[in-house]
Amino acid sequence: MRERVTVLAGGVGGAKLVLGLADVVPHECLTVIGNTGDDVVRHGLWVSPDLDILTYTLADVIDTEKGWGYREETFRVLETLRALGEETWMNLGDRDLATHLFRTERRAAGMRATEIAGELARRLHVRVSLLPPTDDDVQTRVKTPLGWLNFQEFYIRERCRPDVEEVAFAGAAKASATPEAVAAIEAATRLVFAPSNPIASIGPILAVPGIRAAIQRCRGRRIAVAPLIGGACLKGPTLKMMAAQGFAPDLGGVAAFYRGLVDEFWIDPRDTSWKEALEREGLQVRLADLLLNTREQKTALARHLCALEK
Amino acid sequence: MRERVTVLAGGVGGAKLVLGLADVVPHECLTVIGNTGDDVVRHGLWVSPDLDILTYTLADVIDTEKGWGYREETFRVLETLRALGEETWMNLGDRDLATHLFRTERRAAGMRATEIAGELARRLHVRVSLLPPTDDDVQTRVKTPLGWLNFQEFYIRERCRPDVEEVAFAGAAKASATPEAVAAIEAATRLVFAPSNPIASIGPILAVPGIRAAIQRCRGRRIAVAPLIGGACLKGPTLKMMAAQGFAPDLGGVAAFYRGLVDEFWIDPRDTSWKEALEREGLQVRLADLLLNTREQKTALARHLCALEK
Repeated sequence: MRERVTVLAGGVGGAKLVLGLADVVPHECLTVIGNTGDDVVRHGLWVSPDLDILTYTLADVIDTEKGWGYREETFRVLETLRALGEETWMNLGDRDLATHLFRTERRAAGMRATEIAGELARRLHVRVSLLPPTDDDVQTRVKTPLGWLNFQEFYIRERCRPDVEEVAFAGAAKASATPEAVAAIEAATRLVFAPSNPIASIGPILAVPGIRAAIQRCRGRRIAVAPLIGGACLKGPTLKMMAAQGFAPDLGGVAAFYRGLVDEFWIDPRDTSWKEALEREGLQVRLADLLLNTREQKTALARHLCALEK
Repeated sequence: MRERVTVLAGGVGGAKLVLGLADVVPHECLTVIGNTGDDVVRHGLWVSPDLDILTYTLADVIDTEKGWGYREETFRVLETLRALGEETWMNLGDRDLATHLFRTERRAAGMRATEIAGELARRLHVRVSLLPPTDDDVQTRVKTPLGWLNFQEFYIRERCRPDVEEVAFAGAAKASATPEAVAAIEAATRLVFAPSNPIASIGPILAVPGIRAAIQRCRGRRIAVAPLIGGACLKGPTLKMMAAQGFAPDLGGVAAFYRGLVDEFWIDPRDTSWKEALEREGLQVRLADLLLNTREQKTALARHLCALEK
């Protein structure tokens, strides 16, 4: 049987795994459902940071050093906005702004977020299917001593420094999963949860009504890749967001987060000591090198995940 | 009595005279009512070409060679939009786009066009008062063999080549002049019609209900500066637009356009032969060098207009 791989992913961490999968899975058999919970309107433009990272990665235009945005980017528009006295804490490059203009114009014209993401990907010659989980607005909100912030305000403007008291997904109750996202989850022979921040990247996808039920209906292998290596998070506020949501800030907490949703839990050999405890939770635990810095590491993990290794 | 000078102006031609006036009139005594009939939405952004030329000119950031846009401009966003397959016939530069983002975000938030224009000018350290004639949308439409075009489509995309069958100002019937524009016209000791295209630049201002009546109530000197030198138009489709609207494509036609609105009509010495005929129409005709290429020529004409010469 031909594999149909569907990945639920956030931005930087998700893109690393997706790039590996795109090396080993025929592109028409690969679907990525990208987090849109940290979408934000800046300077009147609709910015979709995680979908953009995924799109730029697959289009091979991404700045691999920064992990986001176009390569060889300039910031002339933003510099001029700053000169006009505007707040420019979100570093939107000139080439990147073309994406946001493209998206915003179509949103204003009533085009579905799903169609816009697909059209953008096609225009950038990406053949992997890139989908938001919903066409509705579901916004990740982070409660801090400064008040409720949207995710970009917390992550970029405040540099993740404030304590996290609570995380919520505004709009989730009224949202619904798209038929495309539901179909991609149900039809997957492998459903992979990327090593992204469970709360901030996977959480907003799971918060969309219809997504969890589709995951339950999926008959393929459902695999979570741990976002921690050696107990630590490589990037971002994963641990403190997990703690705020009542999960232990360790692999046990990640396993609890994915309880009932996955069949396999992939962890790094550095975390072998966790294996037994996780298996007691009923998870099949697999060991694989989860460090995804080089293309070889990404491709190797993807081959493992798809059971392509001999 | 202190002079209060109000100028009705289009883009390039208007900006030349306005720059001269700003050299000789205290900035707090100078008001420019700029044409907004060729405003256009491109890539989802509200572009106001004439107001921008006037603002950039007074802010001394304009590309004087092109006559529009910022100096030392780049076009990275537009190049990227083109690579995405978008139509990019309107040359919007990166720095320029900051203006359009600034404007569009505030329009969407419900801010008046008058306030936005004022705020943009202030941010660019312009102290001359820059006003649209109306906060409503009044769009210049040009009927051609290709159908009805908005002015930028006719002017830029089609390079003024199509025959002009008719000109209309869509939305004018439902529009109203702002209190600020009406007050600036009524209070003017000198009300100057810049040497702009009468149909495309001055016409949309006059089409706004309330503007003509304010001009009638103005007790100052009302002066039209001819947009033709030696019978020819220096730039743009003035003559064929005049003909399409039933005006002779010459100084007689311009005088007919301004009939009842002005007391003085300023023409270039190269057009002295017109003087007698124009005076028979009841106009006071004044002769002055109307070539406004150098700063000296601009300032000299401004001094003449304000009767500052000894």
